[in-house]
Amino acid sequence: MIKAAIVGYGNIGKSVLDAVLTAPDFELVGVVRREAKQAPELAGYEVVDDLTKLSVKPDVAILCTPTRKVPEYAQQYLAMGINTVDSYDIHTGIWDLKQTLDPIAKEHHTVSIISAGWDPGSDSVVRTLMEACAPKGITYTNFGPGMSMGHTVAVKAVEGVKKALSMTIPLGTGIHRRMVYIELEQGYAYEDVAARIKNDDYFIHDETHVIAVDDVDALLDMGHGVHMVRKGVSGTTQNQRLEFNMQINNPALTAQILVGVARASMKQQPGCYTMPEIAPLDLLYGDKEALIRKLV
Amino acid sequence: MIKAAIVGYGNIGKSVLDAVLTAPDFELVGVVRREAKQAPELAGYEVVDDLTKLSVKPDVAILCTPTRKVPEYAQQYLAMGINTVDSYDIHTGIWDLKQTLDPIAKEHHTVSIISAGWDPGSDSVVRTLMEACAPKGITYTNFGPGMSMGHTVAVKAVEGVKKALSMTIPLGTGIHRRMVYIELEQGYAYEDVAARIKNDDYFIHDETHVIAVDDVDALLDMGHGVHMVRKGVSGTTQNQRLEFNMQINNPALTAQILVGVARASMKQQPGCYTMPEIAPLDLLYGDKEALIRKLV
Repeated sequence: MIKAAIVGYGNIGKSVLDAVLTAPDFELVGVVRREAKQAPELAGYEVVDDLTKLSVKPDVAILCTPTRKVPEYAQQYLAMGINTVDSYDIHTGIWDLKQTLDPIAKEHHTVSIISAGWDPGSDSVVRTLMEACAPKGITYTNFGPGMSMGHTVAVKAVEGVKKALSMTIPLGTGIHRRMVYIELEQGYAYEDVAARIKNDDYFIHDETHVIAVDDVDALLDMGHGVHMVRKGVSGTTQNQRLEFNMQINNPALTAQILVGVARASMKQQPGCYTMPEIAPLDLLYGDKEALIRKLV
Repeated sequence: MIKAAIVGYGNIGKSVLDAVLTAPDFELVGVVRREAKQAPELAGYEVVDDLTKLSVKPDVAILCTPTRKVPEYAQQYLAMGINTVDSYDIHTGIWDLKQTLDPIAKEHHTVSIISAGWDPGSDSVVRTLMEACAPKGITYTNFGPGMSMGHTVAVKAVEGVKKALSMTIPLGTGIHRRMVYIELEQGYAYEDVAARIKNDDYFIHDETHVIAVDDVDALLDMGHGVHMVRKGVSGTTQNQRLEFNMQINNPALTAQILVGVARASMKQQPGCYTMPEIAPLDLLYGDKEALIRKLV
């Protein structure tokens, strides 16, 4: 059994709990959260505010913290001899994170698999495979419809916004519409607030619609999706067409991928990896012969 | 530069020539074919009837022979210290082939990547990834529309058939219709021949239509496709939906995958692998940092 700890207990952490308990080869050794408070579904599990307080040392820590906290926790745990996995999603920072964690993992004979959610994550594997199928060409990744966490946080920071939700709507060829739903703070005019949102760096380059509503909470839904498409060239043959679609519950899929890479972390040489750098079969539970007979 | 030899020069071998010459990191050291005859596009390359006659020893032999010949050639070349890749496509024989080649590859410090086309091959990677995303559920692989090599060969063996083409038409949930186009041998009645085809093991379980035509060659087209769909469960969350589609030139895609795994064979530990057992990034040419920044 693989001993796993869940670090961070928001939407992703809660879904990781489901995915760990469903996996036949995992044992939950505890949950680490800011306040070491029990939730009903955590009855029977150790809940602590610091991983070192767990009575059993985990093989792997599944990081479900805010993304900016990932580098700090990963460095700390890898140096303690614990594998880490995360869904670090700042695309421009992934290579640097890998460079930071790789020597620490090697020194302490541990494994880190980073940026393992669905994008970055399973989508990265699909992009890689599509490029292998047709090395020349263009891949478009179209997100949604679904809630963008980053854009929603950006809207909430705008003066005059009480609550917000930013939905990403795919328009094709990697172009997205932003549908922004807000509750206004008292005393603010819709026109002023909408103008501030549309001029924000997060929105100024996209078609953005701002809609004032009475109740943002009533609109929240964890569904999301992606439509990836590549048209390219295999050898000298043009017009090879490849397409990948998903309609999924966002935290549930992220959590399932995290549990898969936690399993895979037990099978890699020490170091830090992104998902396209590991063998997909390592993500799965089960006998290798049975898996190959079924899937290849 | 990776020194590659092409072994077998039919449809796949010809497409592998295109893919090898297009790859910036490959050098073609020669083509092995039954008769060592030159074709115009092979001018300037060594063409021999036995790999040992090549003046430069290849790093990797790309096997484009009939699938039943693959085990014999792979064993021979691996023992000579040459990596091999193939698109061996007898699904029920893949595990046994891996078991046969793995010890030979390890003994001779070589690498074999088997069953690397599109199915088995890139589709196997997608099936594995889909299962990692939603471990409970059903994946359907729907082929076509496109020519089935195996079924076409089976029809040609039926008494009264002069020429034949069997097209695979996807009906969903892994069910396929067979559209069989034949030229009749003189003196045979359509009804008798059609009945024999429909009662053949290859066709008896599928909806099969047999159509007599004057010219089968006029119908031949190398286009093919696949539609893979999985509906499953991530953790405890139902109804996760994943889908992969391709419309492609069949030999061109197979050839491009073969060149990708030939490249990947240079990066693996000695042994025999199927595609889900290797890191997808290893299939690609280029600087690792640039690839990760672009694809992850």
